[in-house]
Amino acid sequence: MLIRHADPAATTPVTMTGAKDVTMQVMVGRDDNAPNFAMRHFVVAPGGHTPHHAHPYEHEVFIVEGELEAECDGETRTVTGGDVLLVPSEAVHQFRNASAAPARFLCLVPVTSDCGQPVSGS
Amino acid sequence: MLIRHADPAATTPVTMTGAKDVTMQVMVGRDDNAPNFAMRHFVVAPGGHTPHHAHPYEHEVFIVEGELEAECDGETRTVTGGDVLLVPSEAVHQFRNASAAPARFLCLVPVTSDCGQPVSGS
Repeated sequence: MLIRHADPAATTPVTMTGAKDVTMQVMVGRDDNAPNFAMRHFVVAPGGHTPHHAHPYEHEVFIVEGELEAECDGETRTVTGGDVLLVPSEAVHQFRNASAAPARFLCLVPVTSDCGQPVSGS
Repeated sequence: MLIRHADPAATTPVTMTGAKDVTMQVMVGRDDNAPNFAMRHFVVAPGGHTPHHAHPYEHEVFIVEGELEAECDGETRTVTGGDVLLVPSEAVHQFRNASAAPARFLCLVPVTSDCGQPVSGS
C-alpha cells in the first residue's frame, strides 16, 4: 500500500504567482493513480501566504498545526490545528500566516475539473 | 465559509458490522454540498478496529495522532501521526488500534461511486 509521511522537509516551493513563502508536497495525486481527488501538504512560513485567487473547483482543508488567517469571499477567520474548511468552487480565497511560527495544512482538490481538465497541483 | 473543528467529543459510534470502538464525524460531506469528496474524522479506542472489508472506491487517509496497524490486501504496516495512506478501490483493508492510547485519522472518500450511487458515510 502507498504510505508517505507529511514531512515539511519534503515540501518544495510553490512558484504560482501570488504565493509567498509557501512550500508543498503532493501526498497522494494523479501520479499515484488517485482516481478522484488529491491530497497536498502545505507549509506557510511566518509572513507567507497562498495566492489570492479563485478557480472552478473546491478545496477541503485540514489545519495540521499553527495559525492562519483564512479569507474566503471577503470573510476572514483565524483557523488553527484541527480546523477543517470547505472553500467552494469559484470562491476568492487566501491563507495568510500572520503568526511567528510555521503553519501546516492539508488541502484536497479533485484531480480534474472543467470538463476533465487536470487540476493544477493534483 | 464552512469551518468545523475535528473534535473527538463530536464523533458518534460507527455501527457498521465489523467495527469495534470506532467513532466518526463527517467534517465535510454531501450535506454540505461537497461536490466530489467527503472528509470524515475517526477515533479508534485502544483495542478497537474498523471493519475488515472492501468497497468499490478509494480511501485517502491522514493519521492525526496515535498509532494504528493498517492492513491492506494482506500487508500490515504500523502508521503514526503525519502518515498518509492511499487504500485503492476494492482492496481489503482494516485499521486496528493495538496501542494503549486513542488514535485519530481523517479518511476521505468520493461522494459517489458505482455509477453515481452515494457513498455510505459521505
